Amino acid sequence: MPFAARLNNVETSAIRELFKLLGKPGIISFAGGFPDSAMFDVAGIQEAANLALKEEPGGALQYGATEGYEPLRMQLAAFMHTKGVKDLQPNDLIVTTGSQQALDLLGKTLIDPGDKVIVEAPTFLATIQCFRLYGADLVTAPIDANGVQVDKLEALIKQHKPKFVYLIPTFGNPSGATLSKERRLKVLELAARYKTLVVEDDPYGDLYFGEPPPPSLLALSSDVPGSREWIAHCGSMSKVLSPGLRVGWMIAPPELLAKATMCKQFSDAHTSTFAQATAAQYLKAGRMPDTLARVRKVYAERAQAMGDALEKELGDAIEFTRPNGGLFFWAQLTGAGGKVKDAGELAKRAIEKGVAFVPGAPFYAREPDRATLRLSFATVGVDRMVEGVQRIGKSI
Amino acid sequence: MPFAARLNNVETSAIRELFKLLGKPGIISFAGGFPDSAMFDVAGIQEAANLALKEEPGGALQYGATEGYEPLRMQLAAFMHTKGVKDLQPNDLIVTTGSQQALDLLGKTLIDPGDKVIVEAPTFLATIQCFRLYGADLVTAPIDANGVQVDKLEALIKQHKPKFVYLIPTFGNPSGATLSKERRLKVLELAARYKTLVVEDDPYGDLYFGEPPPPSLLALSSDVPGSREWIAHCGSMSKVLSPGLRVGWMIAPPELLAKATMCKQFSDAHTSTFAQATAAQYLKAGRMPDTLARVRKVYAERAQAMGDALEKELGDAIEFTRPNGGLFFWAQLTGAGGKVKDAGELAKRAIEKGVAFVPGAPFYAREPDRATLRLSFATVGVDRMVEGVQRIGKSI
Repeated sequence: MPFAARLNNVETSAIRELFKLLGKPGIISFAGGFPDSAMFDVAGIQEAANLALKEEPGGALQYGATEGYEPLRMQLAAFMHTKGVKDLQPNDLIVTTGSQQALDLLGKTLIDPGDKVIVEAPTFLATIQCFRLYGADLVTAPIDANGVQVDKLEALIKQHKPKFVYLIPTFGNPSGATLSKERRLKVLELAARYKTLVVEDDPYGDLYFGEPPPPSLLALSSDVPGSREWIAHCGSMSKVLSPGLRVGWMIAPPELLAKATMCKQFSDAHTSTFAQATAAQYLKAGRMPDTLARVRKVYAERAQAMGDALEKELGDAIEFTRPNGGLFFWAQLTGAGGKVKDAGELAKRAIEKGVAFVPGAPFYAREPDRATLRLSFATVGVDRMVEGVQRIGKSI
Repeated sequence: MPFAARLNNVETSAIRELFKLLGKPGIISFAGGFPDSAMFDVAGIQEAANLALKEEPGGALQYGATEGYEPLRMQLAAFMHTKGVKDLQPNDLIVTTGSQQALDLLGKTLIDPGDKVIVEAPTFLATIQCFRLYGADLVTAPIDANGVQVDKLEALIKQHKPKFVYLIPTFGNPSGATLSKERRLKVLELAARYKTLVVEDDPYGDLYFGEPPPPSLLALSSDVPGSREWIAHCGSMSKVLSPGLRVGWMIAPPELLAKATMCKQFSDAHTSTFAQATAAQYLKAGRMPDTLARVRKVYAERAQAMGDALEKELGDAIEFTRPNGGLFFWAQLTGAGGKVKDAGELAKRAIEKGVAFVPGAPFYAREPDRATLRLSFATVGVDRMVEGVQRIGKSI
């Protein structure tokens, strides 16, 4: 059967192969990008689902508007208000089937084969593949501990005139890096000056450990004249409440939002109204602040434990910056003393020793740095953290 | 903002504009493609959702496999067994976010811009738009009361060498027509002979009023050597249980299924596990046979009432064949005695008189028949049916 040419742009990820090995008994896994199931507020979600079916069974079970279930759009607008986006109306956002679908809709709406799109190096693996399926020619902007390097980003925008720029400014995946407020303002100026859409993917911003991160690009856009109309923002319930609901949202300028809605109509008609009505009831019940406080505390402890263990057990074999939130450490093998410097090689050895992580190379759309690796602390309890890192130590 | 060229292939549907008028108080609507909310088994779904959260909360709320939640795949395979598909394994199907997503994945996986795809004239509106977004050049095959005309279909396959053929063989939308068993076997022979994929979209097959329809193309494919590998089958919980769950499924040859799964990974990662686990528990509880018996009975009564009213009230102004299942009557204005023959014009007048239906023209990918209209009896009680049809009569 002859498949569409667009499939030639992607390949089944090397990570998928790695994940097949995770079923081995006794493996300590730093490999996932998952939140910890043990922290799901099952009782709260159950109560919300029952309330949704009791109060408006038709709304929860019938076909719904492609744009989203109105009570959820209202709750999400209110949720964004609490995060500093003051002037948002329910009509300014659409509900998506996870934020992965927001990326897909952006690709479908905007990308013609051959179009340039700028992403961070490294960036979220499924973003790379999603945009490539629409034929994007990805250009990579370098990052450091403060996020994307804005001077280099500006040069790339001028050179490539991209269809859009895609950033994960807060607790990036895989980098864990957070774009400084100063750089955020600069990115907004670039968006306005070059009339270039900037897509802000923000699934992790609520998962901070100490001080909150700088406001989102969307929130700050009201401070930079002319920038708001060049910002699209993707949010998600997946990391803070439950990935299984598949409830994300996208905020974008009206014309883009209308086109994305049309594309969504023919992609899946609408996101599960049952899941949407459940999420709406959950938010309405006012449980989210407590849920966020709880997950922040647990992830902060685990991040602390992982950072301490990496320093103590691996010493000069790796370099890393401790993240201030999110789910990930991003590290670089130094090769000090002739030790292993290829993270793919190390990942294979580590599986043998009973610990898994993800090598960093696949997160680069171009020119991978093979010394990098991503470690998630999200699903490993503090008691198992040292053991897991020690196993990596034995593999190095 | 410059949008992708593919958006030029579609337009916001004329029907959407019509639907905005449905909020008018007192309107009797034959316009929707919806099942009746009043028939949803809310208690059964609630019990299933609670059981899903109780028995495996992690599975229902965490990220899941792109292919689908394993217990649901097992239940769906068993469900297909009851419908005559005997040799199906859970791995032979993937769960999709409604069957609309199955269409989208087929488009993404198979259609290159300019590829020919054969559809029935008329066919499901969202299919037309979905395939056009991927650049399909749609070719239309004529139908009659026994479904697609297979001799003409064969000629079109020979002439156009399409990427695939898309059919709704059972209680078609909008036609209500059902492909005879004889023609089904012929379609399977064509698939095998010309090595042409045939997509069978089957959301309505369970909604029969009297005798069951002929077995699905998929079920019959075991009788026609070499045909099974050229059949993809899309199923859905939407019309029989609840559209709001957004649970559909696709059965396809292994290589196509693998490519579609990869595309789905970057479209929405997976279908809501909460909705999937709920559907799995519902099927496991054994409630489906009673649910199906109940909806069949109610829709049969409404179809009978609509057919009687159309004959009595509209006389020679329209022609139609009574459907044996599904949700729709498909009718043609005759223009007898100088009466209105343009269904778009009639639809406007009818809204003024307090009744809505959908003109047939948008259901044609090419050369619309403007005398046609689609009438859904699904959401109108028997007591209101005569009144609704009388209002159409006054508009004619």
